[in-house]
Amino acid sequence: MRENLGAPVRLGQAICYSALSPGKRLRPLLVLTACEAVGGDWRRALPAAAALECVHAFSLVHDDLPAMDDDDFRRGRATTHRKYGEALAILAGDALLAFAFEELTRLAIREVRPARVLGCILRLADASGSAYLMAGQALDLEFEGKPVTRGDVLRIHLRKTGALLGAAMAVGAIVGGGSARQVEDLDRAGMRLGLAFQIQDDLLNAGSTLGALGKRAGTDAKRGKATFPRAVGEVRARSEAAAFLSGARDLIAHCARPARLLQLMDVIAERDR
Amino acid sequence: MRENLGAPVRLGQAICYSALSPGKRLRPLLVLTACEAVGGDWRRALPAAAALECVHAFSLVHDDLPAMDDDDFRRGRATTHRKYGEALAILAGDALLAFAFEELTRLAIREVRPARVLGCILRLADASGSAYLMAGQALDLEFEGKPVTRGDVLRIHLRKTGALLGAAMAVGAIVGGGSARQVEDLDRAGMRLGLAFQIQDDLLNAGSTLGALGKRAGTDAKRGKATFPRAVGEVRARSEAAAFLSGARDLIAHCARPARLLQLMDVIAERDR
Repeated sequence: MRENLGAPVRLGQAICYSALSPGKRLRPLLVLTACEAVGGDWRRALPAAAALECVHAFSLVHDDLPAMDDDDFRRGRATTHRKYGEALAILAGDALLAFAFEELTRLAIREVRPARVLGCILRLADASGSAYLMAGQALDLEFEGKPVTRGDVLRIHLRKTGALLGAAMAVGAIVGGGSARQVEDLDRAGMRLGLAFQIQDDLLNAGSTLGALGKRAGTDAKRGKATFPRAVGEVRARSEAAAFLSGARDLIAHCARPARLLQLMDVIAERDR
Repeated sequence: MRENLGAPVRLGQAICYSALSPGKRLRPLLVLTACEAVGGDWRRALPAAAALECVHAFSLVHDDLPAMDDDDFRRGRATTHRKYGEALAILAGDALLAFAFEELTRLAIREVRPARVLGCILRLADASGSAYLMAGQALDLEFEGKPVTRGDVLRIHLRKTGALLGAAMAVGAIVGGGSARQVEDLDRAGMRLGLAFQIQDDLLNAGSTLGALGKRAGTDAKRGKATFPRAVGEVRARSEAAAFLSGARDLIAHCARPARLLQLMDVIAERDR
């Protein structure tokens, strides 16, 4: 392999700033606990956990750009483009996406079979691409300021949030040696969990303050973002979130060691910030 | 696998507009002829050829953005952000990068061994990431308007152009069943070819018109871009390009069927538009 020349200093700083920001690391934790749930050793899934967090960080950096959501704060600090400028923010995001796939190939070093590693790469590429993550953001921008139905919000949330949480759990199950059925069930569970998570996010944005949330609150309403509470009201949004979480829990009932995954799912769906 | 929902209409259009623009398809042709050069069947390398073009298209779309090179024309047409807006251009680029890795996994369907497919993914991720493609663009922006030495321009060109041409040839060789030595040699050959190609690009930008080049000419000088002619003068730039091409040719001398690859390399290094 060719010598790794490393990133130029400022680009490297922008990448680290983006990837190592004080987030909750929910996606990597989902990878590890899903791996354990199907009976695997979570340590082998560490490169996949890193990959999922990189894709998440990439999507936040690009979503925050002035041409997109134009956010100045994220996780209690200036967004990457506010600190390093737009050009480096775009490049740092790009590099994080490429790095995610590089990192997944390292699963093979941990004795995950190459065919299974390819399965992980396909899941993550699919979830990060034009059908899911990018589609979600495109729809999100498209619907800004327009009236939305429950179906519209579901379409957006499934793509923007559900797909990556599904991929996180599916990838964990693949690395852990799960059966094809388990992998699909955990993918679907992650999608449902993603919906519960995103509805909670919508509710928090509507009610929280900058201090508690680490990013500006009330921004969704101001921009006319497609949110669940806007489509169905707060009360029904809360009950739907609970139903999605319960559906997600049911899907992993047949796993061998689901305790820590279940615990994490509850924390994710019911977080207060 | 979960159902592929497809991209929202406008995002899909922006992706196609970016990927199917009237380019020369040099990188995919390098993949296919490199595969043939080591004795492989080029048809098996088609997904890899598509992947390389997607990464190239992604990098052009992002490089052209207002926050980067701010270009209005590319390949004789409006750039993606001029036609679809900045947000969709960023997302289309992102989606193309993710799609490249998805496409590489499809090599396995064509009976390329999973371990070899992983080798292709690692090469492409490395070439597209923080050490090469993104580093090249970051350095390119950093050096804008500053005095540059030959070494500075080499560093930029190797990362921005050389790495992806090297990856194209290495990936072709991996799919074609080349030995580890051949894969490394073709990677290095591609790097040198990339330098010859980029120097020719610098010379064309300095001397061409919009009509012939399909993008604005003279823009490098106006922006104070780091170019080879600027660092060492036109005459020496020409002789260095010839030397890099010759070095690249030497590195593939021991291949089984190098005829079409050699022919392509000559065309690439000596093109007049």
